[in-house]
Amino acid sequence: MPDLKRGVFIALEGVDGAGSSTQTRLLVDLLVEKGFRAVATKEPNPGGFIEPAIRLSLAQPSGSPVVDALLFAADRADHVERLIRPALADRKIVVSDRYLESSIAYQCAQGLDERWILAINKHALKPDLTIIMDIDPEISLKRKGYPRERYENSDFLKRVREKFLERAERKGHEVVDASKPVEEVHAEIVRKVLPLLISVVP
Amino acid sequence: MPDLKRGVFIALEGVDGAGSSTQTRLLVDLLVEKGFRAVATKEPNPGGFIEPAIRLSLAQPSGSPVVDALLFAADRADHVERLIRPALADRKIVVSDRYLESSIAYQCAQGLDERWILAINKHALKPDLTIIMDIDPEISLKRKGYPRERYENSDFLKRVREKFLERAERKGHEVVDASKPVEEVHAEIVRKVLPLLISVVP
Repeated sequence: MPDLKRGVFIALEGVDGAGSSTQTRLLVDLLVEKGFRAVATKEPNPGGFIEPAIRLSLAQPSGSPVVDALLFAADRADHVERLIRPALADRKIVVSDRYLESSIAYQCAQGLDERWILAINKHALKPDLTIIMDIDPEISLKRKGYPRERYENSDFLKRVREKFLERAERKGHEVVDASKPVEEVHAEIVRKVLPLLISVVP
Repeated sequence: MPDLKRGVFIALEGVDGAGSSTQTRLLVDLLVEKGFRAVATKEPNPGGFIEPAIRLSLAQPSGSPVVDALLFAADRADHVERLIRPALADRKIVVSDRYLESSIAYQCAQGLDERWILAINKHALKPDLTIIMDIDPEISLKRKGYPRERYENSDFLKRVREKFLERAERKGHEVVDASKPVEEVHAEIVRKVLPLLISVVP
């Protein structure tokens, strides 16, 4: 497989338990198997030095959505500079398990202003393709087990889901039904990714 | 001393080695001695959970000013919510060793846009009084000893100083000559603080 014409940046987003981690792994495994140079990554960036602060912030019962939003933006800026931008410059396919749309959906569902979230993330790279994995939080929370963080309750996650869908409609992001069996969701994601891949194969 | 009519928030700012830590301590000690309820604090917030990430970021040779700016803004939002706002609600005098003007001066001197720094700090409380401690970085760095962080070199700090002074002019912040002996600088700061204190004594 010759080098792609350019790097490709794909983000998989969705509420807790929608399966973005599983689907990121399945997609990258398939791409690698087919001979592409693809890397899986995620947010918060697990190798990054900001992730411990994010975990502490989310674990606090009286945490602040403003602080969370700024920490996620800082982690994203670091993630873009150290990992995503160099991989794209090297013409790889980068698949991120969560990215900017998760910040927007989760923080707006806590009352923050969408324009402010976009402003603090102004230095973040725009993905070539964003796929929203849509699922009823009542179902996704059962998949995950009991709530472990401030964000994980179904009333809140219903607002998050609405925000994901509202933005997807407005911004033209792809949406897949994440309540289906894992292999079906995977096949659907591959169908959404194919036109983009075809456009960058030499 | 009866309670003040309201809380008072004072920020002391300046380049590395200008003496804001010493002057914060001297001012708070004097206020407490005179019977006021005053608290000293600083940025980065040393009791906060974001400070370790800031230290790591500043210690990296290839660190990013965007990441630094977002981390300082997150730490400030946390500092305001947990410490400054409750102390002001309790009608205390809060003196912060560095605050928003330091972010603006240090990050703009690295090429970031002032409006972006203000945007990411939109939730930060505005001080009642900001005092810029002005000094030639050649002198202040000698006071501090050799540089320990990315920010501590005199060419860079000269740009930081210019930004502090330009904003002070534009925003009407007070400026004191921080090259003078410690006791003289202290007396000058007290003279700047007095009118504000008189306005809030019942």
